[in-house]
This record gives sequence, structure tokens and C-alpha cells, in this order.
Amino acid sequence: MTEIGGADASAAATAEAVAAGERLHIPIQLRWGDLDAFNHVNNTSMLKLLEEARVRAFWRPGEGEHGPSTAVLDSGLDAGVLTLVARQEIEYFAPVPYQRHPLEVQMWFGKVGGSSVEVCYEVFNDPSFEERVVYARSTAVIVLVNAETGRPTRISPEMRTAWAPYFGAPISYAHR
Amino acid sequence: MTEIGGADASAAATAEAVAAGERLHIPIQLRWGDLDAFNHVNNTSMLKLLEEARVRAFWRPGEGEHGPSTAVLDSGLDAGVLTLVARQEIEYFAPVPYQRHPLEVQMWFGKVGGSSVEVCYEVFNDPSFEERVVYARSTAVIVLVNAETGRPTRISPEMRTAWAPYFGAPISYAHR
Amino acid sequence: MTEIGGADASAAATAEAVAAGERLHIPIQLRWGDLDAFNHVNNTSMLKLLEEARVRAFWRPGEGEHGPSTAVLDSGLDAGVLTLVARQEIEYFAPVPYQRHPLEVQMWFGKVGGSSVEVCYEVFNDPSFEERVVYARSTAVIVLVNAETGRPTRISPEMRTAWAPYFGAPISYAHR
Amino acid sequence: MTEIGGADASAAATAEAVAAGERLHIPIQLRWGDLDAFNHVNNTSMLKLLEEARVRAFWRPGEGEHGPSTAVLDSGLDAGVLTLVARQEIEYFAPVPYQRHPLEVQMWFGKVGGSSVEVCYEVFNDPSFEERVVYARSTAVIVLVNAETGRPTRISPEMRTAWAPYFGAPISYAHR
Repeated sequence: MTEIGGADASAAATAEAVAAGERLHIPIQLRWGDLDAFNHVNNTSMLKLLEEARVRAFWRPGEGEHGPSTAVLDSGLDAGVLTLVARQEIEYFAPVPYQRHPLEVQMWFGKVGGSSVEVCYEVFNDPSFEERVVYARSTAVIVLVNAETGRPTRISPEMRTAWAPYFGAPISYAHR
Repeated sequence: MTEIGGADASAAATAEAVAAGERLHIPIQLRWGDLDAFNHVNNTSMLKLLEEARVRAFWRPGEGEHGPSTAVLDSGLDAGVLTLVARQEIEYFAPVPYQRHPLEVQMWFGKVGGSSVEVCYEVFNDPSFEERVVYARSTAVIVLVNAETGRPTRISPEMRTAWAPYFGAPISYAHR
Repeated sequence: MTEIGGADASAAATAEAVAAGERLHIPIQLRWGDLDAFNHVNNTSMLKLLEEARVRAFWRPGEGEHGPSTAVLDSGLDAGVLTLVARQEIEYFAPVPYQRHPLEVQMWFGKVGGSSVEVCYEVFNDPSFEERVVYARSTAVIVLVNAETGRPTRISPEMRTAWAPYFGAPISYAHR
Repeated sequence: MTEIGGADASAAATAEAVAAGERLHIPIQLRWGDLDAFNHVNNTSMLKLLEEARVRAFWRPGEGEHGPSTAVLDSGLDAGVLTLVARQEIEYFAPVPYQRHPLEVQMWFGKVGGSSVEVCYEVFNDPSFEERVVYARSTAVIVLVNAETGRPTRISPEMRTAWAPYFGAPISYAHR
């Protein structure tokens, strides 16, 4: 699951990006309803936020909508392609209180395979705060599957090209 | 549950506002996770959006945060005051698809009582769209209660004054 | 939206049921995650519980599954029929704490129209408790629509017959 | 985070359990609302199910309620102890469709430390099905913290004793 093209243009682009360490920065609004009875953002709500960041980062926007250059994936029952989470890992550094400013979800690709990608996340408070807090780190392996057959489907050249600049080092987890 | 002060300043302010029809306009980001297996925003997700609009409209912002002039309510176990939904009514006009633009939740007060308010909502697509769609109308009766005793607690003069400009006609439901 | 067949067998069955006051009793497990930061079952979670009770009461069970005699509705994108909430109303009598016993959702039909039904709910604690508590009452108008066209589709004779015994008086809300 | 007592009674009990491979079996009801627009149980909903299994397995039941012998943890703002997820890892083997039978969440402890435990999960379909399906495996590190100070608090001898029979081998993940 680690090759990203062969002797083609995207390989060079990728090498450069790893050095540059480019990341997507997706602001995601919290909801008070994300809190649980401990008055913190619930573990599962945090994954909901990461899911939404992923949709906004990588799914093709609808008519009249805008997305980043990486938003080239046609996902849905209509499109015939589903994006399934095959595995996910998350590590928390601090409880997240409710806040009106959006969280900033930073994202990049740790690996890109034939039909799957490893998406890496770091979740921060809003960049307008003087003191930045990192709340969590996560990795999700997403597999593209055919909606009819359930079988893996290939990541297209368009996706590879669009995603290459955001290829970086996978997260290494301290507490495994 | 209908009086809003007596022979005081806020009564005059209210009368004017009813005529003026002032409403709060709160943008709320959808999440793809709000969709259900029918590929529409789920009924319960819509109420979650209204809950969030209510929190942003009426709860006092935290340190370093900003809210509208109506955000004067200290709510929470810490603050000792809970805001409970005593009843809610919602009517849908059209299914809501996922969209990147936030929905626009328009809000006003239909009634203000001694310890409860009737919050009225109309949910639209983003004002940047040429064609505006109204997705739903809702009314929620919110009661302020003491977190310890569970008993209703009085709406403060500060709240009455802050909320008076947004007092308007209650929603009349066609399909009751 | 109030006729239920004409001069046919189900009309007689219905008349009897109204007298008898038959209700479905659907046990629904709470989750600690249904609580919000006020340490009560959240308003939107309660509607989620009612949604689940509705699915278990009225949707046809899958292979190897069992449902009540009223579970005759084929709903889903696959089945080509969606069941949309057109309006919902809910009134709370007491906050709901987390509990291991399932809640008991009692259900009946307030009205049955050409392509819509009014589902009535009363939510209780588990019947094993000596003291029964009624937590909430709710009414939901559900419309059957064609998944392709979005247009209303007729309630089938099979549904009318299966549902007739559970036809009763609509809820009248005290605090409207 | 791996010691579980020293030269005491629980060590012997633990050694035996590892051999015996004892697991808790907690049935958890799905909700149709756990599905996302792909018509599968959503990734975050699955974690919600695991959270509920954990609460039912380890939190002390309320008055008039029953729980397994492992349910000895007093958790909540009232109890002064919060149980926070410090990290979680999940691997999926098959998409989970909606089903009326509860899922069976099997649980055991991979590690027990001074103030944290590693909870291991395997999620199956209901044991009444002839063909058992394993849907997912997960590991969650739960830390007990003082609700006031946020500092880790010790796992009590009562917990150690109650949990010892369910101490087993941690999950080793194939696709890390």
C-alpha cells in the first residue's frame, strides 16, 4: 500500500512535497451536541469531525460549491464508489472543550496504495488563538470500493496527481 | 408564557421589533454524517443543527470568543442553569441534501414567559445562493431550570433586554 | 389525511381498536452517548429512539429476523420507497437519566391518510419498574415517497390491514 | 502500563484467565440511525456501540439495575472520576448492515496499568445466527482521571480483583 505511481511525474512531485511538508488545513465547526456527559467532546464526535474534514478535503464539490485542489473524489451510491474506513487509530493529547471557533484539522497522506490511502490528521484549535493546542492525532486507512460489488477499485491518475503534493511522513504513535 | 415585562422600556422595544421583524441569522455547517441511509439530512440531525444555532445565538461566549448581542445566557452545570427543551415542533418543506455551504438558521422569539421562551426557527440554504430554499420551520419551548433543584428559574432583566428586539409572531403550522 | 379505507373490513377493525386502545410496545436500549453535557438524554437523542422504535414496529424484518404484525413496510433506497418525516411534535414531562433497562416506546396511529400516517408515541421507563414514568409524548407525520421521483406513494392495502388494530385517538397537546 | 498487582491473589487469577481466555459478551442493539449515506453502520457509530458496551461492562449499575461482575467502576462528574479514551484503534473486516438482532461485543483487558486499562473488543453478529461474522476488532486505552483536577487516579483493588478473570492477550493488528 505504499507505492505512489512509478517512474512518472507524480513521483517527483511527491518527493518534493515530503520535504515541503504540505498539509491541508480544514476548519470544522464544533457543536455543543458533540459533548458528552463529561462535558468534553466525545471520542466518537472527534472521529465525526475528522470524517467531515475528509469529505471537505477530498470529495468533489457539488455545483456552485468550492473545494481545495485535492477534492477530486466522486464518492457515493450515485457515483458508484464508496470510501470505507478499513482501520483508524487516534491518540488524544487533551480533552476538547466546546468552543465557537472551528477546530483546525490538518491533513496529509501517509501512504497511497492501489486502491487505498492512509490519511493522517492533526487536530488543533483555531489559528486565531495565540497559543496553539494540538488535541489529537489520527490515521485512517480509506479503501475505495465499487458500490455494487464491494470490491476495491483503483485510485485514478487524477487523484494521484491532485494528492501528490500532500504526501508526507506517516504518524508514529508513541503509546502503542 | 406570553408577557414580556410590563409597563417598561422593553415593551416598547418589543412592539417595534414585531413590526420590524428582526431575526438572527446563524450559519451552521452541515456534516456528511448528518445524512441517513436515505441520503438526506436526518430529522434528528436537523434538530441538532437547530440546537447548535440556539447555543450560538443565546449562550454567552467564552473568553476570546464573540457572539451576537443576544448571547447573554449562562448555561451549563457549572453555571448552575440548564436550558431544557420542554416541547418542540418541526415541519419540513423539502429534504436537505449534503452541501458545503452552511445552512442559514433564522431565529426569533415567539413568546417570552417568566422562565421559558418560545424560540422560532426557519432554516434556509446559504444566502449566497440566488434561489433561496426554506427547508424547515420549527418552534422550541426552552425552560430555564436550576441545575441543582430542577426547578424553573427566572429569565433575567439582562436577557429580556437583549432579546426584546427579536420578539416576533409565533409560527402558525399549516398541517397540525 | 384521516380516512382509513371505506366501507371495507378494516373500517370495522379500526372502530374496535379505537375502543380497545391497542398499542405497540417497543423496548429501545438507551446509550450513555445519548446524554448531553447536562447529563440527560438529549432532545435529539430522544427523537433517535423514536425513529428506531418506528423502524422496528413498521419496517419489514430481514431474513432470519422477527418483527411485530405491523412490520410490513418495505423502506429504503433498494425498496424504492422512502419514509420521510413531514412534521414532528414532542412534549417532555421529565428529563431522562441514563439507565440500563430499555425505555418502552408505546406507539399507535392517530391518522392514516392516502400516503401518510400520523404515528403517536408515549415513552415510558421499563415495565419491570414498579413505578412507571412517562417521559415524553410525540407525534410524527410520516409520508411514503417514491425514492426516484420524490412523489408520495400510496399506502398499500396490506399496510392498512396490518395497521388497523393500532388506530387510536391522536395526542392532544396541552402546551401548544 | 502492564503490571497487574504484584505477589498477590489477583496475579494468580490473571494467569489462569489468560489461559482460559475469558471474555465478556455484551449484546448491543443497533439503530437504523447508525447507518450513514452508504447504507452501512458508520465508523463513528461503531465506536459508539463499543462505548456503550464498555459502559455496560464496567460501570457500576444504578439502583434496581444489574450488571456483570466487572461492573464496579463509579464514573461520572458526580462520582468525581472520569474515564477518558487516551487512544483507540479499530480494524474492520466487513461492513455492518442494519439488523434487528443486537451485535455481540466481546471484551477483555489487554493490559491493566496504574490508572489505565487497555480494553480489547471483537464485534460479532448475534450468537443465534448459525454463521458467525466478525465485523471489527478494536483496542481502547482508557485512563481514569479525577474530575476536578484532570489528573490520573489509581485503579482500585476492587477493580483489579473484579477485572482479573478477563485479562487476556492484546490484539495484534495485521495492517498497521
